[in-house]
Amino acid sequence: MKPTNPLVNPMLTDLYQLTMAYAYWKSNRHNVPAVFDLFFRKCPFQGEFAIFAGLEEVLKFVANYKFTPENIEYLKTIMPGCDPEFFDWLSQLDCSEVKIYAIPEGSLVFPREPLIRVEGPLAICQLLETSLLNLVNFASLLTTNAVRFRLAAGDKTTLLEFGLRRAQGPDGALSASKYAVMGGFDGTSNVEAGEIFGMPVKGTHAHAFVQSYTGPQDLKTHNLKDSKGTEFNFVNVVHKYRSELGWTNTNIGELIAFIAYAQAWPNGFLALVDTYDTMNSGVKNFLLVALALNELGYKPIGIRLDSGDLAYLSKKCRVLFGEIAKKYNIKYFKNLAITASNDITVDALQSMKSQGHEINAFGIGTHLATCKEQPAFGGVFKLVEIDGWPRIKKSEDAVKITIPGRKNTYRLYRLEDGAYLDLLTMADEEAPLHHQKTLCQHPFDPNKKIWLTPYAVEPLNQLMWDGQLTKDGEKELARSLMEKRDLVKSQIERLRPDYLRFTNPTPYKVAVSQKLYNYIQQLMKETTIVPEVK
Amino acid sequence: MKPTNPLVNPMLTDLYQLTMAYAYWKSNRHNVPAVFDLFFRKCPFQGEFAIFAGLEEVLKFVANYKFTPENIEYLKTIMPGCDPEFFDWLSQLDCSEVKIYAIPEGSLVFPREPLIRVEGPLAICQLLETSLLNLVNFASLLTTNAVRFRLAAGDKTTLLEFGLRRAQGPDGALSASKYAVMGGFDGTSNVEAGEIFGMPVKGTHAHAFVQSYTGPQDLKTHNLKDSKGTEFNFVNVVHKYRSELGWTNTNIGELIAFIAYAQAWPNGFLALVDTYDTMNSGVKNFLLVALALNELGYKPIGIRLDSGDLAYLSKKCRVLFGEIAKKYNIKYFKNLAITASNDITVDALQSMKSQGHEINAFGIGTHLATCKEQPAFGGVFKLVEIDGWPRIKKSEDAVKITIPGRKNTYRLYRLEDGAYLDLLTMADEEAPLHHQKTLCQHPFDPNKKIWLTPYAVEPLNQLMWDGQLTKDGEKELARSLMEKRDLVKSQIERLRPDYLRFTNPTPYKVAVSQKLYNYIQQLMKETTIVPEVK
Repeated sequence: MKPTNPLVNPMLTDLYQLTMAYAYWKSNRHNVPAVFDLFFRKCPFQGEFAIFAGLEEVLKFVANYKFTPENIEYLKTIMPGCDPEFFDWLSQLDCSEVKIYAIPEGSLVFPREPLIRVEGPLAICQLLETSLLNLVNFASLLTTNAVRFRLAAGDKTTLLEFGLRRAQGPDGALSASKYAVMGGFDGTSNVEAGEIFGMPVKGTHAHAFVQSYTGPQDLKTHNLKDSKGTEFNFVNVVHKYRSELGWTNTNIGELIAFIAYAQAWPNGFLALVDTYDTMNSGVKNFLLVALALNELGYKPIGIRLDSGDLAYLSKKCRVLFGEIAKKYNIKYFKNLAITASNDITVDALQSMKSQGHEINAFGIGTHLATCKEQPAFGGVFKLVEIDGWPRIKKSEDAVKITIPGRKNTYRLYRLEDGAYLDLLTMADEEAPLHHQKTLCQHPFDPNKKIWLTPYAVEPLNQLMWDGQLTKDGEKELARSLMEKRDLVKSQIERLRPDYLRFTNPTPYKVAVSQKLYNYIQQLMKETTIVPEVK
Repeated sequence: MKPTNPLVNPMLTDLYQLTMAYAYWKSNRHNVPAVFDLFFRKCPFQGEFAIFAGLEEVLKFVANYKFTPENIEYLKTIMPGCDPEFFDWLSQLDCSEVKIYAIPEGSLVFPREPLIRVEGPLAICQLLETSLLNLVNFASLLTTNAVRFRLAAGDKTTLLEFGLRRAQGPDGALSASKYAVMGGFDGTSNVEAGEIFGMPVKGTHAHAFVQSYTGPQDLKTHNLKDSKGTEFNFVNVVHKYRSELGWTNTNIGELIAFIAYAQAWPNGFLALVDTYDTMNSGVKNFLLVALALNELGYKPIGIRLDSGDLAYLSKKCRVLFGEIAKKYNIKYFKNLAITASNDITVDALQSMKSQGHEINAFGIGTHLATCKEQPAFGGVFKLVEIDGWPRIKKSEDAVKITIPGRKNTYRLYRLEDGAYLDLLTMADEEAPLHHQKTLCQHPFDPNKKIWLTPYAVEPLNQLMWDGQLTKDGEKELARSLMEKRDLVKSQIERLRPDYLRFTNPTPYKVAVSQKLYNYIQQLMKETTIVPEVK
């Protein structure tokens, strides 16, 4: 139960967490009970929703929280002048006195609600800040981005994550693969992601493969056994179709490359067709080899387009596939797979959909893996209570105000809308009940409130860690990536589409209970948050 | 000599590299000699330069290239139907027959020149593609980004990398720290980066620290020993200045937090001053504690601003520091450090410079670590020669044409300009000589050429790996991060500033020799690149 990346350990933090820990320890404040919220203020990608991800890695990180003797020796060198007893304390430190409440990974979440609430002794809670943010921010960003690609592509299209070569470092790539699948992708090209996370891995060949063949002399053999084991001169079969169809001007190097690939992968023949000329050479060469494979009892898979006008080319290819299917009476040829890649964005997917493209699968790289449209997610980790006293961070900008105190979050459902509003309550309040009228207030604007009689109420946060994994925490860690993907999918499907649309989406309501509202108001009224004490 | 991240191993690749490798192996092409170039087509950030980085990790990756038995077992499950002998071959595979020519890490580089040239048996070279791109792309992007921040900030300002919490995964963060320093940053907040790379680590405290103190009861002691070991009532000393200056309305919780921090870090007192009110509370509380520390023989460091108009506030703070320096005749108080953070961009640095800010150090997070302005670098890896035959990838778009064959790169210097032009030659050509007239051609445009008599010629690519590390490779791996930073700095300083400026920079010339130009022309003329062979 270790974090995926061995680099994830207590040293993956900002130095100021440690210098603060020392100052807390020095003034004997390190064990004062504290509460921190991890939340975000604004949904990414100019949207109105986000998916919470990264929790599995957070729980594994917390469970393994321990400085090694080598870490401690290093810290002594960069924190000179500290009492040696501090390092004794630090080397004993773990998360056995920490509580972590969290929303299950893969949940729809909205601004201001605590995704994670950390309770425990001040110093250790503070020390968790940076690592938790690092583990949650990119994970949530990527998963949310993947959902957007899925929404743009529609449910019937296969989406593959192809971003390894452009991702922000090796782990950026692995995270991209993991959270792309969580957000609704079908697989990745990243072999290591497949090995680590057990997800489907896909891939065919590159332009270099095609370019590396020049003619028949590059083949080891002209033969291929058919699906029943009888050996045939495969090159001759291909040439028979070439003559029949009169496609004798296609690039021979490419044709030979396809033959070589088919000899290696007779059951997985998918050809990249744009190395020389998509319509005049690539697709034709593919079909020649595909027809020959079919004759030998194999089912070719299809083509990949990697340049040009993908929607237009896909439609032309589909027509050609239909003609060949008809000419040779091979029905499934009409439905040969067309896959496409080449710097594909959410916008491009939408545009291609409106053009009625014929693409069955997209490989999405840079724009998915680096979240090019918005490469960072603004999750923050704020002190909301200390020693039983609430903390509020005031700001001119209402968005920046921190909602104080220990809070719970509930999702309220209306029959006509599904999920309609998330309600934050004080942790000692009773939960809102279904079929019972509940007043839901805007956290800061007194004029915005709504009486709601939910038909269902779902508590969002669960105690996942209480010095050790709780039952709920164990259940959370036992959930597979595919189960999390299913959760994302079901939550997205049940959300009102106007919250999800790309243009002017409706903001989802996040409200507070009457009691929490009054509490915030009272704290806001105090001119200084912390009263003058002498 | 392992890669920094244990996740960097041969499995960090796209599946299609392995399916291609199998097809090569199947047609007995896997040992055909091949040459690949790793290069980019366009400088990032709308600039006209880039810094090449990631080579150290590449060499370590290559040196450790080996599939484990567990990897092989996994690959058998995702590559069903392959001959078992293929996996025997794969499990034996290493880079003992590969040659790697590369430009030293930290060098200025330009579009189209091979940063890395990989030579060797086709299959293993092809298998290296994705991992090399992953290791080079983000590293080069980040280093280039760091240089831009350095150029915008000027030489005298301290720049610190603060991006861990927003970076794209744990390794995205560590890479950000490493390559930020290579590009000219002075340190990082990331403790693990400090431990792994031996770079300076910096940090103070957060808002939560200030918020967690309410009054004197939160202090363990009111005392502090002076620099010579005599114990004083430190709180009383602070209050003496508070009365003298009449600053009795500052937030007391904040003042106590600063006192606690000073008690822990009397030699490293740097206070975050914007928790409640920067000018009316934070800076005054800082000065009270700083004066008290000074009285006890310590030298306070300064403040950090994290919100508001940073340039304006810094000037107001500097004025106040001057007044206090004068009033108490403590000269160095005028020069107390002002550090600033808060979503700082290259543009913001330029704007603050033009406003005459008084900030000594910036902490740069999101915009540096995620390269928000352009989060991906377009390095590619292309086949340029196979079995002694050149490969050229034609395209309508000249930018996308691959320059064929084995090439060397030279940097030509002019006395009046410094580095003036990079020249690609065929690998079997003689190197251009200094003080000798050399014809430099645009690679594709016959009208663009220049006769150049360089006063110096620098060969850029070196053979770093020849089945094992070469002498040059060993030297490259022995270079420290700080030596690489020095190389970046000296190259940037000596480059003509118009290549570096942010607005309409001059494109640096990358040309080809006459011989290479003719070679390209000849290959371009052939209607199909690979002649029709039957």
